[in-house]
Amino acid sequence: MIKRLQKNMYEIAFQIRREGSYTSLTRPEIRNIEQFSAGLILLFAQLIVLVFLIAFTVYAPDADASDLHNTIHPVYGGFDQKFNRIVKYHNLFQDVHVMIFAGFGFLMTFLRKYGFSAVGFNFLLAAMMIQWAILCNGFFNLDENTKIPLSIESLLKADVASAAVLISMGALLGKTSYIQLLVMGVIEIAVFSSNMYLGSEFFKVSDAGGSIFVHVMGAYFGLGVSYVLCRNKKGSEVQNTLEGSSYTSDLFAMIGTIFLWMFWPSFNAGEVEGDDRHRAVINTYLALASCCVTAFAVSAIFTPGHKFDMVHIQNSTLAGGVAVGTAANMMVQPYGAVIIGIVAGALSVLGYAKLTPLINSKLNIHDTCGVHNLHGMPGVLAGLIGALMASIATEDTYHHGLYEIWPARAPTTAQHTPEVGSPIIGDGRSASVQAGYQLLAVVVTLLIAIIAGVITGFIILSPVVTRISPENRYDDALSWHLPDEEHAEPSPYAHDTELNGSKHESPSVLVIEEISH
Amino acid sequence: MIKRLQKNMYEIAFQIRREGSYTSLTRPEIRNIEQFSAGLILLFAQLIVLVFLIAFTVYAPDADASDLHNTIHPVYGGFDQKFNRIVKYHNLFQDVHVMIFAGFGFLMTFLRKYGFSAVGFNFLLAAMMIQWAILCNGFFNLDENTKIPLSIESLLKADVASAAVLISMGALLGKTSYIQLLVMGVIEIAVFSSNMYLGSEFFKVSDAGGSIFVHVMGAYFGLGVSYVLCRNKKGSEVQNTLEGSSYTSDLFAMIGTIFLWMFWPSFNAGEVEGDDRHRAVINTYLALASCCVTAFAVSAIFTPGHKFDMVHIQNSTLAGGVAVGTAANMMVQPYGAVIIGIVAGALSVLGYAKLTPLINSKLNIHDTCGVHNLHGMPGVLAGLIGALMASIATEDTYHHGLYEIWPARAPTTAQHTPEVGSPIIGDGRSASVQAGYQLLAVVVTLLIAIIAGVITGFIILSPVVTRISPENRYDDALSWHLPDEEHAEPSPYAHDTELNGSKHESPSVLVIEEISH
Amino acid sequence: MIKRLQKNMYEIAFQIRREGSYTSLTRPEIRNIEQFSAGLILLFAQLIVLVFLIAFTVYAPDADASDLHNTIHPVYGGFDQKFNRIVKYHNLFQDVHVMIFAGFGFLMTFLRKYGFSAVGFNFLLAAMMIQWAILCNGFFNLDENTKIPLSIESLLKADVASAAVLISMGALLGKTSYIQLLVMGVIEIAVFSSNMYLGSEFFKVSDAGGSIFVHVMGAYFGLGVSYVLCRNKKGSEVQNTLEGSSYTSDLFAMIGTIFLWMFWPSFNAGEVEGDDRHRAVINTYLALASCCVTAFAVSAIFTPGHKFDMVHIQNSTLAGGVAVGTAANMMVQPYGAVIIGIVAGALSVLGYAKLTPLINSKLNIHDTCGVHNLHGMPGVLAGLIGALMASIATEDTYHHGLYEIWPARAPTTAQHTPEVGSPIIGDGRSASVQAGYQLLAVVVTLLIAIIAGVITGFIILSPVVTRISPENRYDDALSWHLPDEEHAEPSPYAHDTELNGSKHESPSVLVIEEISH
Repeated sequence: MIKRLQKNMYEIAFQIRREGSYTSLTRPEIRNIEQFSAGLILLFAQLIVLVFLIAFTVYAPDADASDLHNTIHPVYGGFDQKFNRIVKYHNLFQDVHVMIFAGFGFLMTFLRKYGFSAVGFNFLLAAMMIQWAILCNGFFNLDENTKIPLSIESLLKADVASAAVLISMGALLGKTSYIQLLVMGVIEIAVFSSNMYLGSEFFKVSDAGGSIFVHVMGAYFGLGVSYVLCRNKKGSEVQNTLEGSSYTSDLFAMIGTIFLWMFWPSFNAGEVEGDDRHRAVINTYLALASCCVTAFAVSAIFTPGHKFDMVHIQNSTLAGGVAVGTAANMMVQPYGAVIIGIVAGALSVLGYAKLTPLINSKLNIHDTCGVHNLHGMPGVLAGLIGALMASIATEDTYHHGLYEIWPARAPTTAQHTPEVGSPIIGDGRSASVQAGYQLLAVVVTLLIAIIAGVITGFIILSPVVTRISPENRYDDALSWHLPDEEHAEPSPYAHDTELNGSKHESPSVLVIEEISH
Repeated sequence: MIKRLQKNMYEIAFQIRREGSYTSLTRPEIRNIEQFSAGLILLFAQLIVLVFLIAFTVYAPDADASDLHNTIHPVYGGFDQKFNRIVKYHNLFQDVHVMIFAGFGFLMTFLRKYGFSAVGFNFLLAAMMIQWAILCNGFFNLDENTKIPLSIESLLKADVASAAVLISMGALLGKTSYIQLLVMGVIEIAVFSSNMYLGSEFFKVSDAGGSIFVHVMGAYFGLGVSYVLCRNKKGSEVQNTLEGSSYTSDLFAMIGTIFLWMFWPSFNAGEVEGDDRHRAVINTYLALASCCVTAFAVSAIFTPGHKFDMVHIQNSTLAGGVAVGTAANMMVQPYGAVIIGIVAGALSVLGYAKLTPLINSKLNIHDTCGVHNLHGMPGVLAGLIGALMASIATEDTYHHGLYEIWPARAPTTAQHTPEVGSPIIGDGRSASVQAGYQLLAVVVTLLIAIIAGVITGFIILSPVVTRISPENRYDDALSWHLPDEEHAEPSPYAHDTELNGSKHESPSVLVIEEISH
Repeated sequence: MIKRLQKNMYEIAFQIRREGSYTSLTRPEIRNIEQFSAGLILLFAQLIVLVFLIAFTVYAPDADASDLHNTIHPVYGGFDQKFNRIVKYHNLFQDVHVMIFAGFGFLMTFLRKYGFSAVGFNFLLAAMMIQWAILCNGFFNLDENTKIPLSIESLLKADVASAAVLISMGALLGKTSYIQLLVMGVIEIAVFSSNMYLGSEFFKVSDAGGSIFVHVMGAYFGLGVSYVLCRNKKGSEVQNTLEGSSYTSDLFAMIGTIFLWMFWPSFNAGEVEGDDRHRAVINTYLALASCCVTAFAVSAIFTPGHKFDMVHIQNSTLAGGVAVGTAANMMVQPYGAVIIGIVAGALSVLGYAKLTPLINSKLNIHDTCGVHNLHGMPGVLAGLIGALMASIATEDTYHHGLYEIWPARAPTTAQHTPEVGSPIIGDGRSASVQAGYQLLAVVVTLLIAIIAGVITGFIILSPVVTRISPENRYDDALSWHLPDEEHAEPSPYAHDTELNGSKHESPSVLVIEEISH
């Protein structure tokens, strides 16, 4: 082993000295070194995160046995363990956790020969991103000892943050190495946390379901990256016969769709409480139901032959969850949620049917999963609805809840009333000013996402990051040992299969050189 | 687009004027119009539901920010947000939600070429039915402003109601268009809500797990519809080679089975509280465990070759959950739950092995998923067990809980005792009278289900509803764009495949005409 | 039917009289009788369990309507139904339930022709084991009437106990009949309960996530059985082409992996409360995240071609959950959990890559799922970490929590302080003594597991237990009616297929005879 490592290291050093001219090594040797380095980079990234965690994290008081409040009886000022945050959040945290790992993971298995990568890279990427998000989110919320106090809320917020990266991954699915995804994710989470801090603390915007901060960010960031990756016309013109589904892969993808759909109410309601949580669950449930029906209907109406298209069913049925996200805990009324779902479902299917082909051919932005239709447009719609709701929000409709949803609308001096919670001191904003800030957050998020995405695209195309060639796209064979299904029943075509296998391998370097020139 | 719509509209008008004589249009054109209209009908149905929701729904007080109780501190009479119903129900609601969409959806994917329709139509139908059930359930519980107050309880009850429709869908799986399912569902939910109101408010019957109101209703309603659909001998004689499973489709179906089985305790316990909920979880857990073991054993004993039959494992392992449903929160004792599970498991497997072939050949009722064995007979069994338990229920065994389970058994005058909850004023029924009412509910539900099912069968066979021909049964190709799996590796048989594809399409009209004559 | 039963009974009697010499019966007849008897044994086992349940189980007070505490108002000393244990445990119980039935079940579907058996036998075995575990766990906790009071806690503990058996099943996957698994499980649960009682009550050891009592026990017990099953060189030398995965079966297995991974925090936190539960969730979440990343990295580094190996991704990503189990509620600090995850992930992948082939070839122990790498070594690691944490645990770090985690460390006389919970009277153990006991529990569990496993191996190879021949390993055809996938499209090879089918059947008796000699 150590010998092999030394040999590989030597080869890498050798390769670096020659600055990208691989002439002395054969192609399989180069690929071998690349894959080996990718593993090392991954391990190294985990160790870096560990160092940060050592330096910055502690348990939050209600998870910390060394905090005396957990020992002292409540009547003497201790915590009431019956109301430990683990009780309040565990349930919804676990639902969101399912969305991130099973939902997103299986949703992306629709490609016929990219199932291992879809569910596997989603797993790997999310597992890294939740650690990194705990840090990035935490840096904006350090305690007095400049430490990040970890609680179940941190885990929930980390899961939510990682969703942004997985959405971006959806735009790029099959076109990147996992190292490119990793580098992208590391940048994106940092941008995500900063933008959310800006939106929540400076613009004081309400976005319960993260439609602006998560969905708009994730979608347009990913599209920005994809624009850079595919701007090379030659690359996108390569006919790739693997970019399609099979009957079985489409059914695996439905596992993802259904689990995302079922647990989405928890995603939108997870970070709010009391009647806000209750309302968020009801609104999301209704928006998703009407969105599902509308997506089926519009798919049948606009698809040639008027049959359902699995891409619409797998994705557009979920758009209602995105579109109702920002306003989930606002007083949209049950029918309002249903209208939002109907509009989102129709918008999303029409996006797939009409807009995606245009964006691909005219703007040269390739969007594998169509995240623009599931997260991008519905996310912007959610932002607009949030602004609309903010503009008509009155004390009569929300009472004290108005200041819980939009703290900046609270008066600048405390008022003592027999209210739930302590009085909130705000900025005395009017409804229309708050609506303006809601719009501002959407615009700023959009701009940051696109700019940061494009820059990230150039970064992950730099020669130090492992890349893949267009011929190897949408193919598990590049990164996975595939089951030797011929082994059991040796076929006369065994030799052909091997040739076919090597076909996937060989042209990689050739094209990488093309890209880098 | 608008042009195409106009053209289609013109053709539809044309077709209507001619009253069903399609002579001027070719078959593919007619199918095209039918599929297009189906999409429009779906969209229209969603819009109708929206109108009702606008007219009738409001947030329940504990989900309504405009209700001052959410703002006032509990000591002044406000709601304690820690005990908002979202806290009490969210967990179990979410479990039931998984059963409806992942459980039922994947359970029905066992057919080899009907997986898209199984999980997709289940998704579509349930998404529409939960909205409609919110309305139908709500019409029996209007508040003083003739509005339906929506809470997490409404969502839970809507999910439970939609289960009845999905059970009926199981009997019909593969034999109807999705418009037929939709029409059936709209009628069935209305019948379901009325029957449940009758049973709960007039008969004052206890049915915690809905075995009578959901399972008996769903199964016999579906069988009634199926009787009408298949009464045309010619239709049922058509040899359909697609009515079978594949190795992969059977594994997808096991996802449904396992998720239904795991979350069933929440289904039976969802609408009760405290020690009743605790008992319902324990009883359902035990009944399902013993039912699973028994179903395996009886499958091995009664199947030729004494091997397990996947149909039994996928379905009969769940019968214990149905059979213990009515009595889930009653004092059946742990061993009683186990006995119920054993009887239900054996009954269900024997139903599949012996009864279903008879019902199919003698009564001419085709039951694709065998819902009679999973929901029908175990549901009736549950009703009988409920009556038995009611007949032996005493104050000594239940104390105040007796009146919570059977309010009609409470004395006709209030008694002040240091009890949980406020005193209940009832009808002073005796144990045997209550048992009689329990039996009455089973019989009435059975009759209503069968009659309403048969009537519904005739309705969905009427010419205004999109129908499918027997040749197109159990085939996703009718309603879905299937992945072009040949595209990647063009085969010499590509031409044959196309011919095969068109085979699925062409004969539809021919047979519809046969049916309508 | 009764006629067939009589005939079978006659044949069994006939066979017994002849004492194993099957000369008068043909092989298919013998297999038929064996399979029939297996079904009867299963049914009989369920009835035996029923008898025990009748004799010993009652509802726990907070699930028992006949307990007056559920009727009396809390201010008069009744139970507060808002804090019924169903509220405290339901959520996490349900998560663990998903791990047992969906997690373990689908994890084992990775074999290409053993999916029905993997998910089916897991279902059957677990359904029987949870009932048996309720009894075995309960015998050590009888109430004053020598009854076992059933609560949601009993169900949770039964689920956890069944995990040990499913781990052992992983080592044996594909090599046993389901009757052998059943017999093994019945013995293992009894051993499990005794060992856990010994560890908890006598050694007074803390093991929140059951890494010692569940994972070490399950893995080494299973390896002990496997050693006996495969000690016959001839058997293990049989080349079995079915011991491999397919692309689809690997994706089904990922369902298991992902659901185990997502809900593992609930497994480790399920049986503790308050800040301990909060900490256990955080620690397990972090350990699993870092373990996942590390397993991917180490898989890429150590696998030929530096591609990911699905076996590592499916299994080693979970090792962090095992390794952090014992110390999950201890003050390992967030970074400590991450370190544990990194070590476990690396250890587990290296185990698969390097150790398993050695153990198979040198020690002749075949381990189908590699439970040694996922549960065995990480479980021992967890035990060592638990001992380490115990050795450095002080009152300053844990306050009263120290005595909740390690009751034996509490002083021998009660101290009245304003603490949470009632004062605990312990044995006054020092930190190092407690650490010694933690180590002792690991060693004792290891020894008991190996010895009991080897003995159980001999028991399930005895002629009274239905066995399978090496040629039938990893093959669903032995125990399941497989879908007739040829039926739909009759192929020219139909005749060959039938011959192939009979090939699976015929040699079974031959080899059983070989084994028994």
